[in-house]
Formats: sequence, C-alpha cells, structure tokens
Amino acid sequence: MNKLNYRECVQLLLKQDDILILSHKNPDGDTVGSSCALCSALRRAGKNAYLYNNRQIPEKLMPYAEKFISPEGFQAKYTVAVDIATPQLFPVDFEGAVQLCIDHHPTNSCYAENLFLKDDRSSCGEIMFELIKLMPDKPTAEEATLLYIALSTDTGCFQYGNTTARSFSAASELLRLGADNHKINLEFFRKVSAARIRLEGMIYSGMEFYREGKISLVCITREMMERCGATEDDCDDIAGLAGRAEGSLLSITIKETEQGGSKVSVRSSPAVSASDICAVFGGGGHNMAAGCSLDCQPERAKEMLLNVIDEVWK
Amino acid sequence: MNKLNYRECVQLLLKQDDILILSHKNPDGDTVGSSCALCSALRRAGKNAYLYNNRQIPEKLMPYAEKFISPEGFQAKYTVAVDIATPQLFPVDFEGAVQLCIDHHPTNSCYAENLFLKDDRSSCGEIMFELIKLMPDKPTAEEATLLYIALSTDTGCFQYGNTTARSFSAASELLRLGADNHKINLEFFRKVSAARIRLEGMIYSGMEFYREGKISLVCITREMMERCGATEDDCDDIAGLAGRAEGSLLSITIKETEQGGSKVSVRSSPAVSASDICAVFGGGGHNMAAGCSLDCQPERAKEMLLNVIDEVWK
Repeated sequence: MNKLNYRECVQLLLKQDDILILSHKNPDGDTVGSSCALCSALRRAGKNAYLYNNRQIPEKLMPYAEKFISPEGFQAKYTVAVDIATPQLFPVDFEGAVQLCIDHHPTNSCYAENLFLKDDRSSCGEIMFELIKLMPDKPTAEEATLLYIALSTDTGCFQYGNTTARSFSAASELLRLGADNHKINLEFFRKVSAARIRLEGMIYSGMEFYREGKISLVCITREMMERCGATEDDCDDIAGLAGRAEGSLLSITIKETEQGGSKVSVRSSPAVSASDICAVFGGGGHNMAAGCSLDCQPERAKEMLLNVIDEVWK
Repeated sequence: MNKLNYRECVQLLLKQDDILILSHKNPDGDTVGSSCALCSALRRAGKNAYLYNNRQIPEKLMPYAEKFISPEGFQAKYTVAVDIATPQLFPVDFEGAVQLCIDHHPTNSCYAENLFLKDDRSSCGEIMFELIKLMPDKPTAEEATLLYIALSTDTGCFQYGNTTARSFSAASELLRLGADNHKINLEFFRKVSAARIRLEGMIYSGMEFYREGKISLVCITREMMERCGATEDDCDDIAGLAGRAEGSLLSITIKETEQGGSKVSVRSSPAVSASDICAVFGGGGHNMAAGCSLDCQPERAKEMLLNVIDEVWK
C-alpha cells in the first residue's frame, strides 16, 4: 500500500482512464458531493469517469449525482473509493478491487493499493477541493457547489466540532468560485418535509429527561413514523435532536426497526462514554457517539439502557 | 455628517478617551459582540472605554458583556453607536448625542456626527473585525470570540442569505486568532432550554398548512407558553420555525401578547410580498420579512390574515 501526497495523488489520477468512483454505503453529502466533484474534474481533464451506481443515494442528492452515475455495462479500468474507511462500508453490491482511496477517517484500514489520507480534515470535501485545485484548470461553479455540499453537510453547516479555520477558508474560496450556498443551505439545512415537521413535533413533545435533565431520551416507534407519514429519508440526523436539551450530558435515541427491534444511538459529553454503554449490548463507536441494536421493542430497550447507565455512570 | 473610511474611523477612535459604546434596543449577538470587541480593543489601546448599561442584554450574552458595562456615574466624552440604524433603536432610556456610528444597515438614517457604514456586510462584527485589525496590536482571542458571536448570530451560523465569501474568510481568521467557535456554537445554536424543546414540540405538532402547503402557519398562545414554562428568552428566532416546511412559500407566526393581542411575523419567498400583507394591518418591513400587530386573539388574527392573503396573493 502506497501513501500518497497531494501531488502524487493528482498525478496518479491524471494517468488513468475509464475511472469508476465509489461512494460509501448509506451515502451522505460528503461521499456523494466529493465523488461528483472529482468525476466532473476528471471529465474536464478529458477522462472517461463515472460514479458507481450506489442505489442508496438519497433523493435529495440525486439531482446533483444523476449525470455522473455509470450506465449499465461500463467497464472500469481504475476504481477510486471516496470517503470510505473500510471495505465493510462499500455499497452492498460492490465487489472489486480499489486502486486508490481518498479519505479523511483516522480509522481508514489501508485496504486500497494507494491511499491519500488527511485525517485532520473536517470532510472529504475539504481534501477533494485541494486535489482538484492542483489539476490543470480551476474548479467550475458546479464543482464548487458539489464541494460545498460535502463540506457543509459533514460539518453540520459549520456547527460541529470538526469545523476548523481551514474549513472556513475552503468555504470562502468555494463561494468565490460560484458555489450556490443559498440553495444548498435551503435544501439541506433549512427546509424539511411536512412529515419531518410532524415527527419533530412528536419527538420534542415526548422527550424524556432523567437525572435532573442530565439524560435526555427519545423513542421513535413505527407507529409514530406511520402517523407522521415519515420514511427513512425524513430521519436525517434525527439522533441529534435529543442532545439539543440544555444540561443534557447523555442523549439517547431509540428507533424501532421494521422488524420490531430497537436501533439505539447514544451521544455523550466527556462526562460519560457512549461506547461503554453500547458495548454492553454488543455495539460500539466513539466515546462521544456510539450505537447498538437490541432485539426488543423501544420501551423495553429504554429500561435496559437506563439500568446499564446506572451501572456504567455512577 | 462625515462619512468615514476604515483608516479615518480608526484614527478618529484612537484620538478619543472616556468612550461610551452603545448597543441597540432588543440587543442581539451582533450589536453586543461587536460593542464588546470594540471596547476591549480600545482598552488595549490605553483608552477608558465602557458599554452603555443596556438593561435588555439577554442572559446568554451577559457573561461576555458584563466586564465591559459602564459603572454608575461614568462620564463619557465620546459616544459610539454600534449596529444602530436609527435613533428609534437606541436603548429605551438613552438620551444623548452620538459622535460616531459604526453600522451595516442600508437603512441607516445618518443621525451621527460621523458615520462608518458598510452596508454590504453580513454583520457589524465583520466590519468591527476589519477596524480592530487596523489598530496597533492584533485582536486577542477574547475579541475573536466576541466577533465570532457577532458574525455567527447575524448569519444564523452561516446559513442565511447574507453569508458571503468575506464572512467565511472572517470566520477563518477569527478561528486562527483563537475564537472558541465550539463553545459559542453549543451555547447559541445547538443547546436550547427544556422549555424551548417543549414549545417546539407544540409548535411543530400544531403547525397548520393552507393552499396545499404553500402557506404554513403557527399560533403561539400564552397558554402554550405557560404549559411549557417558556419565557421570552426561549423564543429566539421562533418566527423562523414555520418557514422550515418544504413547499411553504409564505409562513406566518402569530404570538399572543401579554395583553391578549397578536404579534404577527410574516416570512415570504419572492412569490408574495410579506410587507404588502402586513401593511393592511398597519405593519411593515421588507418584502421577504414583515410584521404587524392585531388587537385580537390569535385565532381571530389568523382568520383576518388568511382573508387578506386571499386578496393580496391571487
């Protein structure tokens, strides 16, 4: 496995043709925006380049991705993975070797032949922007918009802790190149479906607090989803809502699965480890954000979690 | 009235002493953050400088403003208004002349002896940062944080249409100077009171839609406020919630006043003028955001507004 620097990565890319670009499983704005921007830049450089037809790309991103998606029967000679830390995160039906991986996750498992990794960057978008700027012509307004999607979605529109001075500089440059930040902000941050509005109404009205507000907890049942007319597309970042409560140091979101089980997201402050709690149920993640699955309905899962929290967080 | 450029404004400031800095009525993050940063920079330059004791400064901003507020009996020789477009926006109990006004509102009425106006800037914070950088020493980390409060609150954390490439550049520089964006984002954008959570629950659950979703409408009664334990401090930007609904081109928020009347906020898209609607009830504002007061309860105000909208928006 070769670790590349910026210039080596760009030179390697510009030597290839018939390039397939791979976004990750459960694709988000960063993997799709960065992939599309790279695809566009490679096409400008005269390359035949396509996005792997990742069938999970959300509706919201499709208008931006559509024109880049590979037709049936496209024979790739070179595959580039974008924002994919491990092969477990390949799209479900992808099988094949990856010649180059461009990523920002510290957990990258070095599975690709060549790796371009910058693990101190907010998003793959930030890295991809630097790479595209090293190509012969300057990024187009469309690419700037795609990179703005990547950067803004991975930083929660510049609110998350991963936002750095460098992220803001990149945003500034992207706007100067013509990124349509107003449109993107409306679509990705400002506007939500009526179903989502109803669902948030139920979530906020039903939010439970324990230990004088230090724990905030939300249950989302299938019945709630049905009453709101909500689908998975309406659940973007839904695990972040419980943590909005002032004074909450540990927030828990329990979502009933289609099979009647419980998918649990735990977010925490340094006061307590989310992954310690989830590990008890065979889950994992980071100290401040972790998840697990329980084979029971949300009400029962809630009891079990609160019991474990009493043990883990004295 | 003299219009000043950057250098003239800084030179004029550095000639003064015993300086009083005035923030506007119903002070927000921009007027307070910019005022405090200016006060700190003037003190570093050896000046005796204080903030006018604006009694309306919200609780959230007080920890940042406290140390700058003038003691009883401070005799000012020079008064600087920050982010104040007209004398009608002076704090209620302020009487006195203003020698210098630093502002970004296109509607500035040129009431001050000297005016430093940049009406294409997102916030007064953006302007104040440029001014402070022209002073002898570089801005401190504390000033950077104060200016980040100003810039981020006036741009809705970089989501509003006033966010420009220049705003992002300023944010980048402020972070390099040590602005604590993580703390500010948590306090001002991420965390809300439990009362606010409950209030949003009621607002989203009760949101009404008309004309197939083109109109979204929210009523906030005193009874709702009481049930949630919410105060005015919990109502920051509450008029923005109705407009989150996808497909809504006109959003209306009706809030019952303590006297049992209705305070109405109307937000619109270019499809229809918010100020045309509010003008019918003696109110005003901009095309896209306007307000009016009705001397009746929310339910009645709603009927009257919907009738007027039927006339104004065919």
